[in-house]
Amino acid sequence: MPGCTTIPYDELHTLALQSFEKAGVPLQDARTAADILCGADLMGIDTHGTKRLIPYIARIHDGIFNPAPDLRIIHQKAGSAVMDGDNGLGPVVGGTALRIACELASSNGVSFVCCRNSQHFGAIAPYAQQACDQKLVCFAGTNAYPTMAPWGGAESKVGNNPVGFGAPRQSGPHFILDIAMSIVARGKIRKSLEKNESIPEGWAVDKQGVPTTDPSEALNGFVLPIGGHKGYGIALAIDILAGVLSGGAVADEVNSLFKQKEHAQRVGHFFIVIDPAVTIGMELYHERMEALYTAMKNCRPQDAHSPVLLPGEIESRTAEKYRRSGIPIDHDLLTSLRRLAAGEAPADVPQA
Amino acid sequence: MPGCTTIPYDELHTLALQSFEKAGVPLQDARTAADILCGADLMGIDTHGTKRLIPYIARIHDGIFNPAPDLRIIHQKAGSAVMDGDNGLGPVVGGTALRIACELASSNGVSFVCCRNSQHFGAIAPYAQQACDQKLVCFAGTNAYPTMAPWGGAESKVGNNPVGFGAPRQSGPHFILDIAMSIVARGKIRKSLEKNESIPEGWAVDKQGVPTTDPSEALNGFVLPIGGHKGYGIALAIDILAGVLSGGAVADEVNSLFKQKEHAQRVGHFFIVIDPAVTIGMELYHERMEALYTAMKNCRPQDAHSPVLLPGEIESRTAEKYRRSGIPIDHDLLTSLRRLAAGEAPADVPQA
Repeated sequence: MPGCTTIPYDELHTLALQSFEKAGVPLQDARTAADILCGADLMGIDTHGTKRLIPYIARIHDGIFNPAPDLRIIHQKAGSAVMDGDNGLGPVVGGTALRIACELASSNGVSFVCCRNSQHFGAIAPYAQQACDQKLVCFAGTNAYPTMAPWGGAESKVGNNPVGFGAPRQSGPHFILDIAMSIVARGKIRKSLEKNESIPEGWAVDKQGVPTTDPSEALNGFVLPIGGHKGYGIALAIDILAGVLSGGAVADEVNSLFKQKEHAQRVGHFFIVIDPAVTIGMELYHERMEALYTAMKNCRPQDAHSPVLLPGEIESRTAEKYRRSGIPIDHDLLTSLRRLAAGEAPADVPQA
Repeated sequence: MPGCTTIPYDELHTLALQSFEKAGVPLQDARTAADILCGADLMGIDTHGTKRLIPYIARIHDGIFNPAPDLRIIHQKAGSAVMDGDNGLGPVVGGTALRIACELASSNGVSFVCCRNSQHFGAIAPYAQQACDQKLVCFAGTNAYPTMAPWGGAESKVGNNPVGFGAPRQSGPHFILDIAMSIVARGKIRKSLEKNESIPEGWAVDKQGVPTTDPSEALNGFVLPIGGHKGYGIALAIDILAGVLSGGAVADEVNSLFKQKEHAQRVGHFFIVIDPAVTIGMELYHERMEALYTAMKNCRPQDAHSPVLLPGEIESRTAEKYRRSGIPIDHDLLTSLRRLAAGEAPADVPQA
């Protein structure tokens, strides 16, 4: 890629860690956040990697996000807990909640931890990866600033709420699903606009709710959910798990990281973690996971040159490659990270 | 509808209960199963209501399903449990597992109960409704006989695994989502075939995995998952929760209710139940749920005459109407139910 170089994972992690610390984030929290963002970069999910560190730190600098939150568990009973994020960084709140959820699952078989008063927390895949590395199954999600209309509606009221699911494997890539509820990401529509291309029918509607193939009309309108009312319903279910059950903000109470810079985002997250060792034991669990993998892998592919994939395989291959040869990083982003790591004030960035 | 009459809910429930009892199902199990099947009919989900009782009882009669299973909890720790369905009827295994999941959630905040060696368990909505009536949030799913190809595959290897989510409301219909992973049900494609109509692009592929608008080719091929790789990924995640984590059958190890009559189905189910009273308390929970509802209801609709709906609203209205005026039922089905309730042997039925 032009304008790109590569950087070893450890070096990127150090830059992220130092950037957070210089912004006033305590060491353990800085490590938690760096693990999540660099984890995304390593998997090739660069839209949700250290690129996001720049606006996060800009909001700390503006006094909007709290660099050193007091992460309190406000309710806990056996396997369930509710955490107040105290307006901290999303990956700090999310990463800490995941740690607690993993501990509670080990002692209770299953856990449910939800958080309120957090922010954008990056991709879900790195959280799922961490749970899988501890031999735990993880189902997680977050609500988000609304960019979708309810099914049959003509106003932005629902977040394109992502959801993730991770299940460990003994050898070979973990099962890691990380998806948002729209058919395509807005970023993909922005790329069509840049190339002056129309978009396929079914991706989006204009601001009146009328189907459109014009990327500009689509960006002023709404992306459409997968399966119509089905994706809309799942997005609402995620909002209930992350927003309602944490006693936090829901639907259009959630603010944008970019469009409402003067406000905290008030995002909610949730983690449901299950310990297979406690349900059926690791031996039977692994045997059954491999039965599922074998069934998919033995399936005749539509294209003989493209064998069937399972969620997480591409990201795992990417991570393997990037661990060897370094992570590709944009020159400008690397320069910004180096400046932040050296303690310079952040320059704000336009929406990704 | 021609060939239809109406029957009061209580009368239908009595017929179902007696039919199960006459087939050798113990009273409490018969009641559990009748609650689920009649609950589906009441909500207007007649494809998954008492119509299913006929093949269920036919399989008992053939000695394939176990009318009086010993439902053993084979692993339990705090909030998590694994049940062996002992080849019992799906709604008996599922309804019993849900009851245990609700009890465990009340004492642990959250519970995870999964089952193996069960059968087709009907619609998910009646299970979600039961949890909601107990003021509990419920996330449930089941694996199923494969009718979908993996994304990029050209063979039936994945069930069109349904998933459901219920969240209670203080007044007004509960939030109840009950969806399968295909864009449309195979039944809808069968209707197009009967009417000699083509189907829209994107619904299905033929048996080579090539997109088709011919309903006959589609029925010989595979229905497509919502959001392509996204729906495929969710279907696999459900298989992990229901099949892998119960130590049961997965993917194409699960048998068809209709096509493999000589075998038990070996279906797996799961229930994750959360008690809002234990997380944030019912008062804040209800306030937050209503905030979510208000946001959707205040959304400007695309069509001024069709206000935005939330999952479960249509089914709740139908149930209200059917409670008043009786449930519409096909004459032939009613005749079959009356015969079964009187202890006659079942006549087998073609696939619904």
